[in-house]
Formats: sequence, C-alpha cells, structure tokens
Amino acid sequence: MCQLLGMNSHLPASLTLSFTGFSQRGGCTANHADGCGIAFFESNGDAPGKGVRFFVDREGAATSPVAKLLCSYPIKSHNVIAHVRKATVGAVSLENCHPFVRELWGRYWVFAHNGDLKHYAPRLHGSFHPVGDTDSELAFCWLLQELAKSHAGVPSVAELSCTLRELVPQIAKHGTFNFLLSNGQALWTHASTKLYYVLRAHPFRRVHMKDEDVVVDLADLNSPQDQIGRASCRERV
Amino acid sequence: MCQLLGMNSHLPASLTLSFTGFSQRGGCTANHADGCGIAFFESNGDAPGKGVRFFVDREGAATSPVAKLLCSYPIKSHNVIAHVRKATVGAVSLENCHPFVRELWGRYWVFAHNGDLKHYAPRLHGSFHPVGDTDSELAFCWLLQELAKSHAGVPSVAELSCTLRELVPQIAKHGTFNFLLSNGQALWTHASTKLYYVLRAHPFRRVHMKDEDVVVDLADLNSPQDQIGRASCRERV
Repeated sequence: MCQLLGMNSHLPASLTLSFTGFSQRGGCTANHADGCGIAFFESNGDAPGKGVRFFVDREGAATSPVAKLLCSYPIKSHNVIAHVRKATVGAVSLENCHPFVRELWGRYWVFAHNGDLKHYAPRLHGSFHPVGDTDSELAFCWLLQELAKSHAGVPSVAELSCTLRELVPQIAKHGTFNFLLSNGQALWTHASTKLYYVLRAHPFRRVHMKDEDVVVDLADLNSPQDQIGRASCRERV
Repeated sequence: MCQLLGMNSHLPASLTLSFTGFSQRGGCTANHADGCGIAFFESNGDAPGKGVRFFVDREGAATSPVAKLLCSYPIKSHNVIAHVRKATVGAVSLENCHPFVRELWGRYWVFAHNGDLKHYAPRLHGSFHPVGDTDSELAFCWLLQELAKSHAGVPSVAELSCTLRELVPQIAKHGTFNFLLSNGQALWTHASTKLYYVLRAHPFRRVHMKDEDVVVDLADLNSPQDQIGRASCRERV
C-alpha cells in the first residue's frame, strides 16, 4: 500500500513541516520506499496558481535528494498532494510514482491513490491513457475521461463535486480507493478506509510530530496575516 | 527570447555539467531570468524510460534552489530538455515556464520553444489546451492535436518525423520557431534561426565551458562502457 498527504489552505502555505515527517515513512519510520512524489499548485502572490510544481522519484522519500530539498524549501501553495509508495500493482519505476498529472480544459489535474482495485479494467476511449501500469493511474485516466464527457469546460467546484460523487463509487466498488485530487481550485478526497484530516486555524497551537521527536509551535511558523486568515490543512496523519 | 538546451544520448547520461553552465544564463551571465525548467526521461537501467522528472521554477535558473540541486544531482537519461526564459509573450508565472508536458497515446511529450510567433491563433478543437498564455504552449497543443489526428497510436520515430515535417512549417511561417520535442524515444529539433549541436563520442576530449572558466576532461566523467558506447549530445551551446 501507499500513504497520502494533502493540504488545502485558504492562504498560501508551505508544507515543509508536515512533509519532513511524512517523508520519513518512505524508508525510515515505515517501508513505503518504492517511490515518492509531491505536486504543488504554486500560488501567484495570494491567489491560487494554475501552474504545477511536480516532483517524483523512484527512490524512497527518506533518501531521495529531491525530497530532502523539499523538506527545507518552502513552496507557498493553496493545494498540495504528496505520496509515498509501497508497490502492490505495477513495477517500481518512475512512471508508476504518484501523483499523476494531466491537463483537462486548460487546467492541470493532480491525483494520488492509496489502496488497490481488483478486476478493474475500464474502457478507455477518450484522450487519457496511462503511461505506467498501476491501477491508480488507470482510475485517474477513467475519471478524467468521464469528467470530460460530463462537462464542456471547467465547471464550478460544486458541480465537479456532484459529478465526482456519481463517478467515484463505480471505481470504489472494485476495492480500496482512498485518493486525493486537485485542479488547483479545490482538493477533493475520498476515503474507502482510513483517511484522516486536521483543520488548523488561528489560534495555532504546539504540535508534536508523529514521525520525529519534535515539538513545534505553529504560531511561530505562521505570520499574523496567516493567523487572521482561515488556514486549513487536511492531512493523513 | 529564451534559450534551449537538449540532450539525446545513446547510453544513459547525466546533464549536470552542461546544465551547470546553462543555468548561469538564467540571471547571471545572461538575463534569461523569467523562469526555468528541465525535464528528464529518466532511464530504467540502460533502457530509455517512459517516466518523466519535470522541474520548473518561475525564478531564474541562476538563483533557483531546484536548479542548484540539479547542478550536482546526476539524473541518468536518454533525453533531456531544458529552458531558461526571458518573457516575450505571457506573464512571468509558473504556468508559462517551459518545458511543457502532456500525455498522448500513453506517452509523455515534452516541449520547449525559443522564438516568438506573430498572429498565431490556431483552432484547438481536440484534447489539448494551454494552461498558461504563451504562444509556445499554444503551438505545442496544436502540434499534439494534429499528431493525434494523424496516427491512431504511437507510430515509429520515422513516421513521427514525417508528420512533424508536414506540421511544423504551418507554425514556423508565423515567426521564429526553434524548438525541442521528445517523447522519450527520440529528440526532435527544429531551427528557424540559431540552434547548434555538438556530437560527443569516444574518444572524449577536454572542453572549456562557455559560461564558466572551467576546463573539464570528459574522459574522466564517462565510464569505459560509455566510451565504448555511442554517447551523443545535441546541445545549444
């Protein structure tokens, strides 16, 4: 299986603190060492950005030089999706590392999955085809194909949520389908089994990291403006 | 305008040496500081890989922390495309940084452009739409749309070259259209104006870097196997 970490923030925020702990699970505190990846919809000032910074490595996050850089390099973002992989379906290779990225309606879409799907072979007759051989990328391509059929252009977040609510059960009936999905406007999550979230808002508190013996006062890491803003995080912890 | 650097190698090779010099043009030895990017089709052992490592930054390459990492982090690849941007069309933003990446026929396609296109407004009626607002991404989307119409699946490199030879003049008549394009199987280049290449093969020689006062003996950096193999580089120098 794999593990997921996502962030959706009202104001641009960096994920360095959470990612530092999370990356330890990629071969140090846990054995999810068959690849790692993270995608940031980097903010344009205070506005959500359409551009994506996208890092993948077939090395585990605990040893990856790229993951190491990202632990100390704050990239301000409204939406982030990260993944550490323990291969179940598909070889250990770069093309099988999550998250996966595609373009639809002039927007990038980012997807990462935890779980596995049995007897899942949807018909792909549209414009999205997997590059690797995971059930996860297959599910992502089918989702985008069906979204493209359902709307002529980028619909509202509410409309997209409705369409996803219809589509996702058609995949989830094949097995465990915990996923994170974002197009930079919102972060959609689905939990078949375990997916947790924490909402962080002013006043920020002290937190004890789960993967490292470190206590951090989040009030020190957030600017007064951030504290006034409604910063929120939804994370698998 | 912008500058391009590409590599196509018979055996997996890293581009750290050339990229170190090239990245200085992104704000140090030249003023192409409106963003940078590089995409590697990372090799699977000695075989060309289908997965892509893709790094972009709206900072100039001379100051970008990601570019700095890549100067000392060898990623073995058969095909690499890099770009330093000086904005002419489109704002300075992440979504306007080259290279651009899309998927077609279950393969990633990477594209970077030097030049500018006048009165270029092709009809996009297919599955590829720009996320940013550059003429370059528009041209890339049109190219992929037309490739998708011309072939049902991934054709041979020779067939693709034929199709590109028909399509590219339709764009190039609008202005300067120097570009690098790869799907991991080959590196296609087109020169409207200046695009140089160097072929490096055994026996490797000493080279004097253009952007730094450094002399390197390439024989020291290539293994005996690399020297026996037909390693080649095509670069803008």
